[in-house]
Amino acid sequence: MKALLFKELKQFPILTEIPDLSTSDTTDALVEIKAAALNRRDYFITQGLYPGIKIPMILGSDGVGFYEGDRVLINPSLDWGKDPGVQDKSFQVLGMPTSGTLAEMIAVPHDRLHSVPSHLSMDEAASLPLAGLTAYRALFTRGCLRKGQTLLITGIGGGVASTALQFALAVGAIVAVTSGSQAKIDKAISLGAVQGVNYRDSDWRTQIANEIPGFDLVLDSAGGSGFAELVKLTKPGGTICIYGGTRGAINGLSPQSIFWKQLNIKGSTMGSDEDFNQMLSLVEAHSIRPIVDSIYAMGESAEAFRRLADSQQFGKIVIRIAD
Amino acid sequence: MKALLFKELKQFPILTEIPDLSTSDTTDALVEIKAAALNRRDYFITQGLYPGIKIPMILGSDGVGFYEGDRVLINPSLDWGKDPGVQDKSFQVLGMPTSGTLAEMIAVPHDRLHSVPSHLSMDEAASLPLAGLTAYRALFTRGCLRKGQTLLITGIGGGVASTALQFALAVGAIVAVTSGSQAKIDKAISLGAVQGVNYRDSDWRTQIANEIPGFDLVLDSAGGSGFAELVKLTKPGGTICIYGGTRGAINGLSPQSIFWKQLNIKGSTMGSDEDFNQMLSLVEAHSIRPIVDSIYAMGESAEAFRRLADSQQFGKIVIRIAD
Repeated sequence: MKALLFKELKQFPILTEIPDLSTSDTTDALVEIKAAALNRRDYFITQGLYPGIKIPMILGSDGVGFYEGDRVLINPSLDWGKDPGVQDKSFQVLGMPTSGTLAEMIAVPHDRLHSVPSHLSMDEAASLPLAGLTAYRALFTRGCLRKGQTLLITGIGGGVASTALQFALAVGAIVAVTSGSQAKIDKAISLGAVQGVNYRDSDWRTQIANEIPGFDLVLDSAGGSGFAELVKLTKPGGTICIYGGTRGAINGLSPQSIFWKQLNIKGSTMGSDEDFNQMLSLVEAHSIRPIVDSIYAMGESAEAFRRLADSQQFGKIVIRIAD
Repeated sequence: MKALLFKELKQFPILTEIPDLSTSDTTDALVEIKAAALNRRDYFITQGLYPGIKIPMILGSDGVGFYEGDRVLINPSLDWGKDPGVQDKSFQVLGMPTSGTLAEMIAVPHDRLHSVPSHLSMDEAASLPLAGLTAYRALFTRGCLRKGQTLLITGIGGGVASTALQFALAVGAIVAVTSGSQAKIDKAISLGAVQGVNYRDSDWRTQIANEIPGFDLVLDSAGGSGFAELVKLTKPGGTICIYGGTRGAINGLSPQSIFWKQLNIKGSTMGSDEDFNQMLSLVEAHSIRPIVDSIYAMGESAEAFRRLADSQQFGKIVIRIAD
């Protein structure tokens, strides 16, 4: 079968012919993958920025395909454990250290398979699992977002951020976004965000505060020195949910602001099986269609990884595994 | 009547004869104060480190006395508002900008008065309100501490920290403490803490982790660069509750640790009327006696403020207003 094989650190995966999987080798479900999608995690792994990297390896956490004639979507969250509050030590994300979705076939535990919501194309469905799960947990399980509340999403464009925008709008939240790209801000506004500001503007915080004086929830995956500004934008009693840290360590954070405003700063990553089920229910109830940024053939995957590495996308970058 | 009057910035209050309060001037309850207690807030105000300082002013948030022949204790939380999650803009702490408890008489709204728990002396009761309320909210309302959970209290000795130690032990938590003073650590151990380490030791974090590998809850009022160490000591899914910031801005905080461990960092200050009622119930149910560090006469108040300023105390510094 064909697979995108990650063979060498700092190199993108390479289209390679590898032995087929066989039902005699496993009790897991063998799924014929039709479409996969990339996540920032895949790029980080190629750059060696992940613990426990094994080579060679098939990457990919997002995948949809056919199992026994049915359209199935794979929950990439493996062995979360029994505590809904936090993942177990045994927790893994599909695609490292276990073989991922960037291949014509994958073996996954039967309980990872869900029916593809009927309103979704295979490309859209491939765009949903990891970003949808992460966005759902951050917004609702951890962030407790409700109808009518105000939400700020920093760095709109990535898979989680753009999915969070869709989910939040679906439940009736009022959403503002930041980005370094005017095109991404325009896209977010066209989707329903009430405001977007360019974080490269020196007065970006004032621009936001003039429109929405305080946020019930802020979703951030940057951290860094800009994080302290988010504290100022959060309403008293509000929450900042952290699901990434691309700008590194948080500095200059005022304890006084945190205690006087009774703030909540919560970390969130991936999600439990219950989160996944609830996420699928939300997508079905509101007929949400994940935003597909672009679609690449397996042979064009280096371009897809390049687009991911450069954060050019708005929504998900799909790799079409089979037509 | 006699009052400790704060007349000049950077000076401690001075024992002064001022006009008596009269029932004809107010519809509030006039309470004959018997004992008051100091809080760090009082010292900060004398140093000008507080917004909206008015001079001259009677400081003091903690007080007990007599009203219509009954022993009463004053809830120093004024106008919290309707949202249990966060105080209203109208919220004030008794003792600035309204006249406080360091005088022979005070006028306070009737609904601020509670019966003194029968097992407490007036000096003990005076030690309870502000520290008890702050500790209760931080531990339970915000920190969700339960029996059998592990708790780390940093900087043991202050009023909130020592009261939190008592409350946590009462509900069956396993408590460790830090301090820069061996005497305070010894005192905490004698009260029931299972471990105490000196944060001046370079390996203080290892010392704690060897005894208790992870904390469900960490209570911190320091912030500063040491805060990042607390993240490492907190269990996955655990909470750090911030109720002060004596060491200033938090730096070097890893977003990755926060999201991967699904941590909760929560700010907490003072508390709602419901918090206050629940705190009194806890004190009565477990016959908790607040720790009185020392008792000063009104004429010795400069020494009391000096002890507070130097953080020499373990428990509360009481000012005896009347015998």
